[in-house]
Amino acid sequence: MTNWASIGEKTKQELLVARAFLVGVAEPPAPALAGFVAEHGPRRAVDLILRDKAPPEVGAEVEARRAHVSGEQLLSASEAAGARLVVPEDPEWPHEAFACLSGARTVELPGMAEPIALWVRGKAGLGDAAERAVAVVGARAASGYGEHVAAEFGHGLSTAGFTVVSGAAYGIDGAAHRGALAAGGLTVAFLACGVDVDYPAGHGRLLRAIADQGVVVSEYPPGTPPRKHRFLVRNRLIASAGRATVVVEAGARSGAANTANTADALGRPVLAVPGPVTSKNSVGCHGMVRSGQAVLVTRTQDVVEALTPLGAQSSVELPAQHRRTDELHPHARRLHDALVGMDCASPDELARDSGLPLGKVRALLPELELAGFVARSERGWSATE
Amino acid sequence: MTNWASIGEKTKQELLVARAFLVGVAEPPAPALAGFVAEHGPRRAVDLILRDKAPPEVGAEVEARRAHVSGEQLLSASEAAGARLVVPEDPEWPHEAFACLSGARTVELPGMAEPIALWVRGKAGLGDAAERAVAVVGARAASGYGEHVAAEFGHGLSTAGFTVVSGAAYGIDGAAHRGALAAGGLTVAFLACGVDVDYPAGHGRLLRAIADQGVVVSEYPPGTPPRKHRFLVRNRLIASAGRATVVVEAGARSGAANTANTADALGRPVLAVPGPVTSKNSVGCHGMVRSGQAVLVTRTQDVVEALTPLGAQSSVELPAQHRRTDELHPHARRLHDALVGMDCASPDELARDSGLPLGKVRALLPELELAGFVARSERGWSATE
Repeated sequence: MTNWASIGEKTKQELLVARAFLVGVAEPPAPALAGFVAEHGPRRAVDLILRDKAPPEVGAEVEARRAHVSGEQLLSASEAAGARLVVPEDPEWPHEAFACLSGARTVELPGMAEPIALWVRGKAGLGDAAERAVAVVGARAASGYGEHVAAEFGHGLSTAGFTVVSGAAYGIDGAAHRGALAAGGLTVAFLACGVDVDYPAGHGRLLRAIADQGVVVSEYPPGTPPRKHRFLVRNRLIASAGRATVVVEAGARSGAANTANTADALGRPVLAVPGPVTSKNSVGCHGMVRSGQAVLVTRTQDVVEALTPLGAQSSVELPAQHRRTDELHPHARRLHDALVGMDCASPDELARDSGLPLGKVRALLPELELAGFVARSERGWSATE
Repeated sequence: MTNWASIGEKTKQELLVARAFLVGVAEPPAPALAGFVAEHGPRRAVDLILRDKAPPEVGAEVEARRAHVSGEQLLSASEAAGARLVVPEDPEWPHEAFACLSGARTVELPGMAEPIALWVRGKAGLGDAAERAVAVVGARAASGYGEHVAAEFGHGLSTAGFTVVSGAAYGIDGAAHRGALAAGGLTVAFLACGVDVDYPAGHGRLLRAIADQGVVVSEYPPGTPPRKHRFLVRNRLIASAGRATVVVEAGARSGAANTANTADALGRPVLAVPGPVTSKNSVGCHGMVRSGQAVLVTRTQDVVEALTPLGAQSSVELPAQHRRTDELHPHARRLHDALVGMDCASPDELARDSGLPLGKVRALLPELELAGFVARSERGWSATE
């Protein structure tokens, strides 16, 4: 790949124009085109396409738009829309985030091509934002419970130093972004339309807030409207950009389940938040845990542990309350139980109730008295706590 | 073991008296005594104990009560209390249910001794009740959600032909019993006190209803008050009588978690119902799933599948809604998406929007029209569904 630092402004501009053309000329994902660009480099790829010298499978991907797309126009329109194009030659490009989409894996997962370039709107650097990223996704028609939990995870992951990646949809996505914003953290929204399109309509303000503090990202040139299949295509970017994908509420068949399947296929851990079994919003999450696709998580710390497997053991130890009687030998505890149940009793009565030998009862009572568990009075022995 | 059918009434009575003495003379579990009885038979074991010829470890278990217990008295008192003694020699004894508590396993799990006999109050046969039994346990201070789910599982398991085993406590236990009763099913309550003791006080009516339709069972002779450690000792009977243990709501450290640990140690499957991550009542259940101790279950069918492993695969397939567009080839679906988004469009516009070659668009449109997905008008093509 061309080294960004060592090349002149003119070359940079040529690369941007070429990639703007390439990312706009085919409907993503365009695996043949992606492979063709990887083979010939962007400038030669454009040249071959325009001279109709590309192989037929590439031709099929670019035929419909070849005559209608201009890299220069897309770049100037995007500048007007407050967006910039980030390309793989740019040091800002998060190679690690998308590497799992390209290369050998593409063969196993058709349609998983790495993006050719990304349109970005926002103040943060795409590379910084993607470095320690966790995807938090879920149902649009979420419950109040789901939104609360998504906001908690968004906030908690931000506080723990992770970028929260999501899709800016209503419900879980929006709550996760808001949680991250509230914590002052980085958050990335991958859109299924242009980065200047307010979709969903009610999330215009949220998208501006994300751009102010993080980045809004898309494969689709500014102005592109959303289409149903674009949400599924976009989901692969969320799944690959997150080091893990947390699913908070998902129906049996849902976009979130699609993102989870993609993350799983890409080898990224899928983590699912449980909920009431009476809620259809949690059916997908419970199904993923039952099938072994997802690990159950209940809090930010569980997610952090899934990303740092050495710490995974500790989550198994549940916070347990400690009782003072825990320190007692089982026999002493049994005697103490009898005393608690009997109020005042003689050693003989205590032996029969507890089933402990009388000698043992006689030996244990003073020990328990010394430790402050029992007291002796004229009426007999009784428990003090 | 003596064959019940081939022995006379006198011998039966002697065996009952001997076991009544043995189950009352030591505080359960009494592993030394259980081993001693298994070795010598109940009548000889009683004789040796009364002549002070038992080994010291047995002596320690029986010393406190030896002089105060009479098998005859216990039997006549239990008859007055509406209870009967069921002994291992009786064909009603559920050997399979408790076998895991005895023998080699006792060595690995100290204190796991098989019961020497059981006091039973109720119309159902103990053997019948234990044959296809599932334990449903959980928090006393359950939430409304937890009680609802426990009643659903109790009802569902009953309807599926399972006996519901539990501990008759407030909260989850009570709801599980009630669900089974409402379905007209068998249910078994194992108590940590005598079968004639109304504990908890508010469950007197429930216990009578269980005895009317199923059985109330205890190792403790009628009249025995509950003691704290007896609940833990009793839990081993629930865990071993259930072919699986379903935990519905459990705190991090709880009686239900203890039953689950015991079931796990006995090699019985533990199944945990998830709940809101915001509820402390579900912390134990989520922890069991995370640690791998329990399998997550959301409905009766999941429990049935856990007990019939061959059917386990099917639960992974989630009920998914089917959409008519699912049948379409990805290209046709992409074209259909474009049409849905664009209202009325020409093949040219559709090619550019979808990124499909114009020739492909022209070929697909009539196909989609024939299948009823799109329609042609003077203004252009549009989607019909």
